[in-house]
Amino acid sequence: MIIDCHGHYTTAPAAHSDWRAAQLAAFAAGEPAPEYPEISDDEIRETIEKNQLRLIRERGADVTIFSPRASVMGHHQGDLSTSIAWSEACNNLIARVADLFPGVFAPVCQLPQSPGEGLEASIAELDRCVAMGFIGCNVNPDPSGGHWTSPPLTDRYWYPLWERMVEHDVPGMVHVSASANPAFHATGAHYMNADTTAFMQLLQGDLFRDFPTLRLVIPHGGGAVPYHWGRYRGLADMLGQPPVSSHLMNNVFFDTCVYHQPGIDLLTTVIPTENILFGSEMVGAVRGIDPETGQYFDDTKRYVDAAAISDEQREAIFAGNAMRVYPRLAAAVGLSA
Amino acid sequence: MIIDCHGHYTTAPAAHSDWRAAQLAAFAAGEPAPEYPEISDDEIRETIEKNQLRLIRERGADVTIFSPRASVMGHHQGDLSTSIAWSEACNNLIARVADLFPGVFAPVCQLPQSPGEGLEASIAELDRCVAMGFIGCNVNPDPSGGHWTSPPLTDRYWYPLWERMVEHDVPGMVHVSASANPAFHATGAHYMNADTTAFMQLLQGDLFRDFPTLRLVIPHGGGAVPYHWGRYRGLADMLGQPPVSSHLMNNVFFDTCVYHQPGIDLLTTVIPTENILFGSEMVGAVRGIDPETGQYFDDTKRYVDAAAISDEQREAIFAGNAMRVYPRLAAAVGLSA
Repeated sequence: MIIDCHGHYTTAPAAHSDWRAAQLAAFAAGEPAPEYPEISDDEIRETIEKNQLRLIRERGADVTIFSPRASVMGHHQGDLSTSIAWSEACNNLIARVADLFPGVFAPVCQLPQSPGEGLEASIAELDRCVAMGFIGCNVNPDPSGGHWTSPPLTDRYWYPLWERMVEHDVPGMVHVSASANPAFHATGAHYMNADTTAFMQLLQGDLFRDFPTLRLVIPHGGGAVPYHWGRYRGLADMLGQPPVSSHLMNNVFFDTCVYHQPGIDLLTTVIPTENILFGSEMVGAVRGIDPETGQYFDDTKRYVDAAAISDEQREAIFAGNAMRVYPRLAAAVGLSA
Repeated sequence: MIIDCHGHYTTAPAAHSDWRAAQLAAFAAGEPAPEYPEISDDEIRETIEKNQLRLIRERGADVTIFSPRASVMGHHQGDLSTSIAWSEACNNLIARVADLFPGVFAPVCQLPQSPGEGLEASIAELDRCVAMGFIGCNVNPDPSGGHWTSPPLTDRYWYPLWERMVEHDVPGMVHVSASANPAFHATGAHYMNADTTAFMQLLQGDLFRDFPTLRLVIPHGGGAVPYHWGRYRGLADMLGQPPVSSHLMNNVFFDTCVYHQPGIDLLTTVIPTENILFGSEMVGAVRGIDPETGQYFDDTKRYVDAAAISDEQREAIFAGNAMRVYPRLAAAVGLSA
C-alpha cells in the first residue's frame, strides 16, 4: 500500500481556471462574478486519467491525498468574498474527483483565507468539507503571497482554526500559494522559505502545549530544516525550548518531496521515520526528467525505494504514517484502518 | 592551512554597540548622533582573544575572513545617513582587528545599504574599504529586514555594485541582517530564506552572462539549496535556463555553516568541491554543544574532517577555494598566493 500525501489538482479543466480569471476580472471591475460553469464528469475524468492517474499507475502508488492546485489558491488576490467563492469551487471539484475515482483520491481542502481577515470563513469551509468527507486542509501561513503580513502560526490569531481541526481530527499541510513578491520565485523560493519559516515559528512557540493532538505536515521535505537539523536542535537549546524531538516531533511531519537521492537519504537519516510521509507533489513543481538518472525528478518513490532503511521503515513512510496522521483517510478510501 | 570564510565580530566592545543604540535614539529624536567613542587597542584585543582567537586556536583554523556582526548591520533601521555612519564605524573596527592580529583576520566590509535608496554610498564605502585592504563585502539582498522590498539581485538596480566589485576583484557574501518581520526568526528562518531566495534569483536571471567574473558566496551551506539540488536542477530545465553547473557554478559558492555531519555529507556529495568554502559563522548563530556529539554545533571543521572526501578535496574546501575566490586574501594575511 502506497499513499502519496501530497498531490494537487494542477490539471483542472480549463473552464474552472477560466472562471477564476473571470471572477478576478469582475472583482477588479467592481462587478459580480459570472456563474460558475458546468463541468462534466467526463471532463474531470479526462484531466485525471491522462495525468495523475496515469502517473500513479506508472509509478506504483495506490492512494493520493489530493487538494486544489496550491499555486492558484491566490489568497492575496481579490478579497475574502472572492476567496470564499473560489475555495468552494476548488473544493467541490476535489470532492467530485474523489467520488469519480473511489479509493484513489482522498480529498483535502483549501481554505478561504484572505490577508488581514479573520479565520471564520476558513473554519466554515473546513466544516463544510469535512462533512463531505475531506480528511485534511491546506493552511497558508502567508496569505499575502510573499509579504508575510500574518502573525506566526503560534499566534492566538490561528487558534480558532487549530481548535476546529483538532475537533475534526484533521491535520493541516502548511502550504503557501503563489508569490506576489518579485523577490521570491514560487516553487524555487517561496515554497521552501515558507516550510522553513513555519518550522521555526513552531520551534519558537509552544503551540503543541495548547494543542497536543494537532498535526501539521510541512511539505517539500521540510524546506531547509532537515539539512540544517543541527542548527534547529541548537537553536531550540539557545532559545530555552525543550529538545525538538519532544517539542515538535509528536506533531510535525515532513513529506518526501525532495527530488534527488542524496536529499531523501539525508531526510531518512536525520528525521525519525514516524515523522516522514511519502509525497511527490505530483503533477507539480518540477515535471522534467533528470539527465543524471533518466527518471522524472518528482518520481520520489524511487528515492524512497533506494534509501538505506528497513522494510518496516519504508512501509511506515509509504503508508502507515499517513494512516496515523490522517485518521479519516481509511474511511475516505475504503480501507480498514 | 585552514581558512574560515565566515566569521563575524559578534563580540565587539560594548562602547561600539552602545554608540549604535545612541545613534538610533538620536535619529528617532531628530537629533545629531553623539561622537563615536574612543575604543582602545586593548579593548579590541580582549574581545578577540577571549572569543574568536581562542576558538580559532582550539579548533585549528589559521585565517578567518572577518566581517562586522551581520545581525546588527540593521539596514532597515534609521536612514541612509545613519547606515553610512554605522557602516564606517563597523568597518573601521574590523580594519583595526585585522591590523592588531596580522595574518589572522582578513577584513570584509558591510555596506551602507538602506531600503529604497541607491547603491552609491555602498560603492563609495567599498572603495574606501578596499583601499584599506579589505578583500570582500557582505551584500544584503533584503535591506528592509524581512519585507523583501528590493528588486532581485539580477535586476539592473544592483549592477553598479557588481561592476565595482568586479573592478576591485572582490567577491560578495550574500548575507541579510536582522529580521524586522515577526514571521521570520533571524538565524532560524530569515538567514536560510535569504540564501535560498538569492540562489533562486540567480537561477532565474542571467547575471553572470553580464558579469562572468563576479563571485558570490551564499552562506549557511546555501540555505535549502543543496538539500533540494534536484529541484533546482529541474527548475533550471523548466525555466529554459542552462544547466545549473554552467549557469551558476562558476560564480556561486557555498560555505560549510551546516551544523551536523549529515548536512555536510550532503553538501560535499552534491555540490562540486570547487564551490565549497570552509566556514563556521563563528562566534555565531548557534553557540551550544550538541548533546549527540559532545562537541560545539558550530565546530564545522570536525564535520569536514569526517566527510568522505579526498585529501585534495579537503584542502580545496579548507583553503584552496578561498584563495581563489578571494584574490586579495593572500596579500591581506601575508601568504603567498
